[in-house]
Amino acid sequence: MADEKKLTTRAEDFANWYNEVVLRAELADYSPVRGSMVIRPWGYGIWELMQRALDDMFKETGHENAYFPLLIPMSFIEREKDHIEGFAPELAVVTQGGGKELEEPYAIRPTSETIIYSMYSKWVQSYRDLPVLMNQWANVMRWEMRTRLFLRTSEFLWQEGHTAHATPEEAEEETLLILGLYRRFMEEWMGMPPLTGLKTDSERFAGAVRTYALEALMQDNKALQAGTSHFLGQNFAKQFDLKFQSEEGQEEYAWNTSWGVSTRLVGGLVMTHGDDAGLVLPPKLAPTQVVIVPILRGDTTGPVLEKADEVAARLRGQGVRVKLDAREHLSPGSKYYEWERKGVPFRIEVGPRDLEQGQLALARRLTPEGAKRKEFLPEAQAIAELPERLDAFQVELRGAAVARRDANTVRGVNSIEELAEALDGGAGFVMTGWSGDPAVEDAVKERTKATPRVLLGEEFRSPETPTKCVSGHGDSVAEVAWARAY
Amino acid sequence: MADEKKLTTRAEDFANWYNEVVLRAELADYSPVRGSMVIRPWGYGIWELMQRALDDMFKETGHENAYFPLLIPMSFIEREKDHIEGFAPELAVVTQGGGKELEEPYAIRPTSETIIYSMYSKWVQSYRDLPVLMNQWANVMRWEMRTRLFLRTSEFLWQEGHTAHATPEEAEEETLLILGLYRRFMEEWMGMPPLTGLKTDSERFAGAVRTYALEALMQDNKALQAGTSHFLGQNFAKQFDLKFQSEEGQEEYAWNTSWGVSTRLVGGLVMTHGDDAGLVLPPKLAPTQVVIVPILRGDTTGPVLEKADEVAARLRGQGVRVKLDAREHLSPGSKYYEWERKGVPFRIEVGPRDLEQGQLALARRLTPEGAKRKEFLPEAQAIAELPERLDAFQVELRGAAVARRDANTVRGVNSIEELAEALDGGAGFVMTGWSGDPAVEDAVKERTKATPRVLLGEEFRSPETPTKCVSGHGDSVAEVAWARAY
Repeated sequence: MADEKKLTTRAEDFANWYNEVVLRAELADYSPVRGSMVIRPWGYGIWELMQRALDDMFKETGHENAYFPLLIPMSFIEREKDHIEGFAPELAVVTQGGGKELEEPYAIRPTSETIIYSMYSKWVQSYRDLPVLMNQWANVMRWEMRTRLFLRTSEFLWQEGHTAHATPEEAEEETLLILGLYRRFMEEWMGMPPLTGLKTDSERFAGAVRTYALEALMQDNKALQAGTSHFLGQNFAKQFDLKFQSEEGQEEYAWNTSWGVSTRLVGGLVMTHGDDAGLVLPPKLAPTQVVIVPILRGDTTGPVLEKADEVAARLRGQGVRVKLDAREHLSPGSKYYEWERKGVPFRIEVGPRDLEQGQLALARRLTPEGAKRKEFLPEAQAIAELPERLDAFQVELRGAAVARRDANTVRGVNSIEELAEALDGGAGFVMTGWSGDPAVEDAVKERTKATPRVLLGEEFRSPETPTKCVSGHGDSVAEVAWARAY
Repeated sequence: MADEKKLTTRAEDFANWYNEVVLRAELADYSPVRGSMVIRPWGYGIWELMQRALDDMFKETGHENAYFPLLIPMSFIEREKDHIEGFAPELAVVTQGGGKELEEPYAIRPTSETIIYSMYSKWVQSYRDLPVLMNQWANVMRWEMRTRLFLRTSEFLWQEGHTAHATPEEAEEETLLILGLYRRFMEEWMGMPPLTGLKTDSERFAGAVRTYALEALMQDNKALQAGTSHFLGQNFAKQFDLKFQSEEGQEEYAWNTSWGVSTRLVGGLVMTHGDDAGLVLPPKLAPTQVVIVPILRGDTTGPVLEKADEVAARLRGQGVRVKLDAREHLSPGSKYYEWERKGVPFRIEVGPRDLEQGQLALARRLTPEGAKRKEFLPEAQAIAELPERLDAFQVELRGAAVARRDANTVRGVNSIEELAEALDGGAGFVMTGWSGDPAVEDAVKERTKATPRVLLGEEFRSPETPTKCVSGHGDSVAEVAWARAY
């Protein structure tokens, strides 16, 4: 249905704007189940495109999909001590099955390290069985008190990769391979350029030795943790007896990694590219890349529809995802409004006049400064050029996001006070030196609400890497990107 | 690892044979979670191919994917009285979340009619919002006491379609559209030709008005219910207030359908085509269609591997899914054995002699009677012919399954005693007349353990449709296919 009430603007209230876009673009809806949402077809269509792209990348790098149980015996989760400490407060617990109280309760998986490594221990005997490179697409559940559509819900969809290796070097390499793969996906598919690097000990995954993360800057200048890749060492292998006989005949514990991204990415996409008219989708992740709206009037309806059909077929023939919106009870204006709100990159209008003149009207979801909102192009040219125009649109969105991230990143800050000023002045990421002392994290958090998002990897470090800790005490051991975060 | 112990044969013990094939072809494994299994990459790869094919068919017929919550408030499930009666004994119940006892417990979805139609009631106002044609790929949970890998597990993966329509005719048409779609999938992709038709009242889905089913005959002559498509009438619409304003301005309840197939299909595939050497996969659903085994010996290893690589690349270029098995610690014989057990349709061997003679050895997973197990073909010919040989293999498997089903179907049976004799004599399906009296179902079940699998649809009825009920009492109102079933 047409719903032409204006959205809250981003400047007025970013959080409300976000919710309204998600609801009114029909990406998702609230459900009667506390903390769970419904992903509607438009949102799920985006997720399917994300899945397909990531899945192809996983498979190209030798990973296989599998599926492990939803329920995990409580005793499994309790075995790795950091793991249970981290996840205990978030568990949903099944205590009854088939009409009876269960002897041992099950947790709905909050993540699957425990059940998966218990299975690997059954399958792996020798170094020849390594590496094991598996991934699963699944739902997980982490009981949340304050939920936000896509960003934080009790149930969410994700993929979780779990690998086992013969050496720590190989496992570390895998962790970084996936970090790079995620980064490429976020940059090339989502147009959402993240910072990457290590998490501090206080922010690392419950049970990991090292956690690498991808942190993207949203339009409100808050950071979104968009993915993580963990080097688990032998923590889980030891608890689940995941051993192998090495080439030298020794019995050794395997080295594990795990890594995941979730439907949270859809929220990141909204907050990276959306504007005050609604969602803006990068073409690679748009379920519909081009919508065709025929202008249906009196006795020209037949030929106009016929032309619209033909244009749709020719675009499909070029691999473009097209929708022909021939609904009769809506005005063209209502349709424009609806598809803009849903973020479709291009719109083609076909009316009786266009038919006469052999032209099509082409409108872009975002108009570059100074350009016309709508262009009239000869039909053949419009069709021929659309694939490259879609590519160009993709590149522009990414470029704008990179420029925004860089423009909102502040370097050269030398005290917690300056850090607070920068953030209060609207900065996104603030890069400083850090001594490695967790007390500094606490002090910064208390003063500014910002947390260390990552210890910057080589490619993101400042040209002049800070030598002093932002606290004023001690030398810097790592450059930190601080930000307020989702 | 190589595991060369022979399988139990089908003749010795079909149930054991089945379990051994599933485990040793690495389709699935038992898990530490009661009633749940792990789907291993080889089994999941088959499921992914099934998903892709079905998903394309759903989308071609106008359906969209969405995702609804895993947890369903108990009060929702209780609202439709037949529904709760049917599902109550099978529910897994979450009573704790985030460390607290929940005020209202949640069931893990055994199926999603209730939660989905409650959402539709929010989205649908007018006839213009209809039909709603959605599908979800999800895990569901039905607590089972006696489980069988793939065939009956507490948790399983499936798709469930849920649609809403303005008229009962349109909903009935949808129910049959999907029944036909499933049948086409099972025939053309799985080579598993099902009977289709209505379920009797006693076998229908809890909450449906009519249930259509697809029943396939396994090699032990037991029937497997492979899919169902339900006409739900207004049963759920009334409980969940799913109303719309009709074109005439009246407020009316919508008409619903639901339909699903599950990972059970993987079990059906095993029991339809497998033989005493293991799994046999129809090429369309084989994660690997052709395995290349290089014969690695001394100083010819380099050129042989190079040739194997080249052959693999050329086959991939033709759209064939190829695996090159270059593992060094296994003999060629062990590899043959392993890939046969996993059901790969074709194997290519490349050895030093083949290299010299410009030939490849091509072995089929199943050898037609009188044919040679292995053919030596000029390399170019082997590569060029493989796609059509894969197609022919697909057609043969289907043909064999059709012939077996028909050979094991008995018609012209006129009493319960004759029905029992036919079944004891090894019949699969036995077709008889039926008066519509449920007491006859009970009598047959008690005497023979067979149940009415379906009331046969037009295309499966006997040329001379029975006029009398098999009980000897009353006229026949429908021809029934009886069978013992999984």
